[in-house]
Amino acid sequence: MVDDLGAAKALRRSGLHAWLKVDCGYHRAGVAPESAYALEVAKELGEERGVFFDGILSHSGHAYRTTNRDEAAEVAESERLVMVRFGQRLATVGIPVRGISVGSTPAMAAVRDLTGVTEARPGNYVFYDRTMVLIGACRPTDVGVTVLATVVSHQPGASHFIVDAGALALSKDPGPGHGDLPQAMGAVQRHPELTVATLSQEHGLIRAASPAELEGRFRVGERLEIVPNHSCLTVAHFDVYHVLRGGRVVERWPIARGR
Amino acid sequence: MVDDLGAAKALRRSGLHAWLKVDCGYHRAGVAPESAYALEVAKELGEERGVFFDGILSHSGHAYRTTNRDEAAEVAESERLVMVRFGQRLATVGIPVRGISVGSTPAMAAVRDLTGVTEARPGNYVFYDRTMVLIGACRPTDVGVTVLATVVSHQPGASHFIVDAGALALSKDPGPGHGDLPQAMGAVQRHPELTVATLSQEHGLIRAASPAELEGRFRVGERLEIVPNHSCLTVAHFDVYHVLRGGRVVERWPIARGR
Repeated sequence: MVDDLGAAKALRRSGLHAWLKVDCGYHRAGVAPESAYALEVAKELGEERGVFFDGILSHSGHAYRTTNRDEAAEVAESERLVMVRFGQRLATVGIPVRGISVGSTPAMAAVRDLTGVTEARPGNYVFYDRTMVLIGACRPTDVGVTVLATVVSHQPGASHFIVDAGALALSKDPGPGHGDLPQAMGAVQRHPELTVATLSQEHGLIRAASPAELEGRFRVGERLEIVPNHSCLTVAHFDVYHVLRGGRVVERWPIARGR
Repeated sequence: MVDDLGAAKALRRSGLHAWLKVDCGYHRAGVAPESAYALEVAKELGEERGVFFDGILSHSGHAYRTTNRDEAAEVAESERLVMVRFGQRLATVGIPVRGISVGSTPAMAAVRDLTGVTEARPGNYVFYDRTMVLIGACRPTDVGVTVLATVVSHQPGASHFIVDAGALALSKDPGPGHGDLPQAMGAVQRHPELTVATLSQEHGLIRAASPAELEGRFRVGERLEIVPNHSCLTVAHFDVYHVLRGGRVVERWPIARGR
């Protein structure tokens, strides 16, 4: 993945496959598709001097800033148009565009038209998470990953209790901060009356509206499932998935990681 | 570590060692030291029916909410007083208190008196981080861990560039949010003119005041060191430390992790 002329030149005679990264509106990385520079980098790759030019690639990260599927569908369509038009621009100057790769989970969850697109890469799509629910990309029941947490402290008369899932389990991802979306560090499955209020390193603080709501409930040793704000960052903290079917663990899958 | 009567009773005949967790003012977990409940749990442990009662333990997490050493020293002293007095309260009713364990990194960095304390557990103390610098717990040169990041995207005319250290490397810890402390997702070592503005999963966005500040600098492939907001969460993402002496890697230490 390349968006830099120097890097594109350095790929000559490497025998590697390369995608040209294009800024489709997120404005993080990628060449600006209308720019002269974009054409310059594309030409360098398209001449294929010892490199395979696989196509053009974008990431519509701005789809995370939407609050419903219609808005996300608009982002998806604008991403498609930017990419297909840029592909046409390259084709008219004789640069072959073999692939057009797009994607972000909110955009893919809402997309209506993929004409001209050859690949999509919605990473979070496999599990979804609390963020995806909040921005309308999926329903709560679509979320496929939770963290099993144990109550480790619950003082008499308190309106909160503590679980052993903190930032080292759930990550410190705050979830979406735009619109009027409710702020929390996760959601307790089947307990909408509870708020994952704060996470410190090893601890999660779960709050109720009043001590009365917790009286006799959520005793030390009890377990609950927490829906993470960001499933990717959460999963990266663990070594194994416990795969459930009908509430029972039926398989254990190792999580590939290593850095 | 116990702060629950049911858990204390369940420890009978376990042969385990136990510490009684005390709330020293952080109000997250731990028995309230003035409460009847605290005495009840302490008695259960102190009778040592097949359990070893090692002592009382606190965590002064509220020391993270200070902005200078004097404030942190006040937290440390109040933690010490709470714990020593609670220890005396237990002693007067015949409950032996073998150890008094306190600690948080900001408190330990500022503490003036440890009379009566037998142990301190300041976890972050070994490396410090950007948060510790901001709240005055240490100087910038005291920070002992950085993440080596590579510039992976820098578009011509942009006032930002992208590095390959995102939330999966640095964590999403936002650093301190209190007082007038500057908000950023980390600091670039030796480049106070740059801001680690945002982190997405795999990418860090480093911003300058203007494109002119970046012209001809920080090209794709260049490396820089990032001081994390929270060294504990950062380190937990990696498998190995690269130990530097005089700017050269002299050892590689495996990082113990596994979940």
